[in-house]
Amino acid sequence: MDLNFRLEARCAETHARLGRFTTTRGEVQTPVFMPVGTVGSVKGLDYVDLEALGAQIILGNTYHLAIRPGIEALEALGGLHKMGGWRRSMLTDSGGFQILSLSGRRKITEEGARFQNHVNGAELFLTPERAVQIQASIGSDIAMCLDHLAPSTAPRQDHEEAMARTTRWALRCLEARTSPRQALFAIVQGGVDHALRQRHLEELAAHPFDGFAVGGLSVGESIPQMYATLEVTAPRLPEDKPRYLMGVGTPTDLVEGVARGVDMFDCVMPTRNARKGGLFVDGGRARINLRNARFRLDDAPLDPNCACYTCQRFSRGYLRHLLVAQELLVYRLLSIHNLSIYLRLMEDIRAAIRAGRFGAFLAAWRAAVAG
Amino acid sequence: MDLNFRLEARCAETHARLGRFTTTRGEVQTPVFMPVGTVGSVKGLDYVDLEALGAQIILGNTYHLAIRPGIEALEALGGLHKMGGWRRSMLTDSGGFQILSLSGRRKITEEGARFQNHVNGAELFLTPERAVQIQASIGSDIAMCLDHLAPSTAPRQDHEEAMARTTRWALRCLEARTSPRQALFAIVQGGVDHALRQRHLEELAAHPFDGFAVGGLSVGESIPQMYATLEVTAPRLPEDKPRYLMGVGTPTDLVEGVARGVDMFDCVMPTRNARKGGLFVDGGRARINLRNARFRLDDAPLDPNCACYTCQRFSRGYLRHLLVAQELLVYRLLSIHNLSIYLRLMEDIRAAIRAGRFGAFLAAWRAAVAG
Repeated sequence: MDLNFRLEARCAETHARLGRFTTTRGEVQTPVFMPVGTVGSVKGLDYVDLEALGAQIILGNTYHLAIRPGIEALEALGGLHKMGGWRRSMLTDSGGFQILSLSGRRKITEEGARFQNHVNGAELFLTPERAVQIQASIGSDIAMCLDHLAPSTAPRQDHEEAMARTTRWALRCLEARTSPRQALFAIVQGGVDHALRQRHLEELAAHPFDGFAVGGLSVGESIPQMYATLEVTAPRLPEDKPRYLMGVGTPTDLVEGVARGVDMFDCVMPTRNARKGGLFVDGGRARINLRNARFRLDDAPLDPNCACYTCQRFSRGYLRHLLVAQELLVYRLLSIHNLSIYLRLMEDIRAAIRAGRFGAFLAAWRAAVAG
Repeated sequence: MDLNFRLEARCAETHARLGRFTTTRGEVQTPVFMPVGTVGSVKGLDYVDLEALGAQIILGNTYHLAIRPGIEALEALGGLHKMGGWRRSMLTDSGGFQILSLSGRRKITEEGARFQNHVNGAELFLTPERAVQIQASIGSDIAMCLDHLAPSTAPRQDHEEAMARTTRWALRCLEARTSPRQALFAIVQGGVDHALRQRHLEELAAHPFDGFAVGGLSVGESIPQMYATLEVTAPRLPEDKPRYLMGVGTPTDLVEGVARGVDMFDCVMPTRNARKGGLFVDGGRARINLRNARFRLDDAPLDPNCACYTCQRFSRGYLRHLLVAQELLVYRLLSIHNLSIYLRLMEDIRAAIRAGRFGAFLAAWRAAVAG
């Protein structure tokens, strides 16, 4: 499904762009960050929390959902939107990344990936066609093509093979899709080799995908390598389609990604860090470890400038106590805070692009995080 | 502090009574159930959830709070109300029960209880005076006297000693209290020996406590023994003070306790069971195990007649999936449901007493749970 992506403003000094697209669930303003709901919920939060946070679109993991609750349950229960109550947009990944990073014994052939899942060892066979079919059962608004990636340190030939297979699988996904309400994004591979990235994005851009993702980054390469690769990849993706940087990253990565023309991001970092006591403060420019004893008697909120639910109600001292005591409540409260920081950052970025001051925003950000 | 307890209605056929009392935080209608917030939160829930559930008063555990976050933090952070945001009434236990059930090496003398806490083994010395002082630091509206109890199967002499010490400690608590905003309840011991119960309640009733609790039940005796003991204890406690049955119990225990003249209850059962998938349905008359495979594809709410947040939004199939996958969100959602069942049951009981039909309510309840 065409997302009717429209660009509304561009930064004169960077590749940053302001836009919006529309799924059957509603409009999404870009650049956007998507909270990750790995196994059917954004850990600790329900849809009421996510709506209150202003999340526009969330991500579901096909690999995890195909294992639990499984396709039969997803279909019987009306899809993940109905199950979790989420009324806004949802993107699902294809499961390819988790097969490589999580599963047990696996065998990848031209037909697809046969693997043992990491939960109970049961064997699954994921083909491009099956990945599309499962994502239709989940009922996401944007599906991702099954892709194949090589580690960023792998030799050039591995990346060329991964690209070629990713293209063939992407075309099979395009062929296989049946849901008229679901958009389909292709994924550009090529590691940190700029020429390979260029070649692969040209290959994929020739086909009618509804958006394009940059895959295979933030998987071991250095941050300068990642930014340099992004610099030559994202801006060359089709102008008129959303550009999605998969699985990235820190608040600084979001700012730097937007500067390189990225429209969409997802990452488990805000929620995963929150559960361990790593809290973003100062709009994402700094981080504190709430387990630190200096917060034990601290009556101030996590971030005095944060308007989130948690900061409006609870002190660092109370939250630290709950964290140290492993009280369940704390995981929700801290996740709300970190997601609020991320979502507010994206709002600030959109406002800066709209006002023609994203260049200044970027310069100030870089100065703040360097200081 | 006198709670200004007023009786508003009595059941003609049982000892059930409808009343209300007032703490500095507001009014509490009885019979009432108090959700338990062991370590500074009702596990998984915040005060917004608890207010939405209609909880009037919650319970905090002095033993747990004295260990973590500790008195220094409780005082620096302004007490547990301010920390957790809770604006309504709170009762704290004295820690005596946890010393016997949780702590490591302990030595109980006339002076108090010296013990190693179960978290880090540090030694604490809890005296009646110290128990009152800690509860003042927590800032609860109702404090409990430090008591001493014998197992219900212990010989009569152990119970007599426990009663005598409990009385002496209760009088020391009365002497030690300094907070003019905190009520103080004494605890009746005596195991399942009706004569001992009678003797101990008379001993305590001679002193100006603000309420009286029945302790040492639901600790190993049979249910008929517990009800029989309650039958001869609760109705003989002072008419004009709240009567509190500590640590009890199932929905049926609440109904049967009210029938024997109990005004206040607390128990971890609704929240603890919820976290394991034990959900009350049919107003508390039945229970389901949500882990059961028969709920895997079930699109119905936990209880079709329940108006709680969870039942209005989520299906058994989705909740079962979250439970099996150990997704954090589920503990909050299931706890909300079980607490809603308990709090709604108490509302129904109050309405029945007010309308003069509690006898019929009790008969119908007994028929339903026997069937």
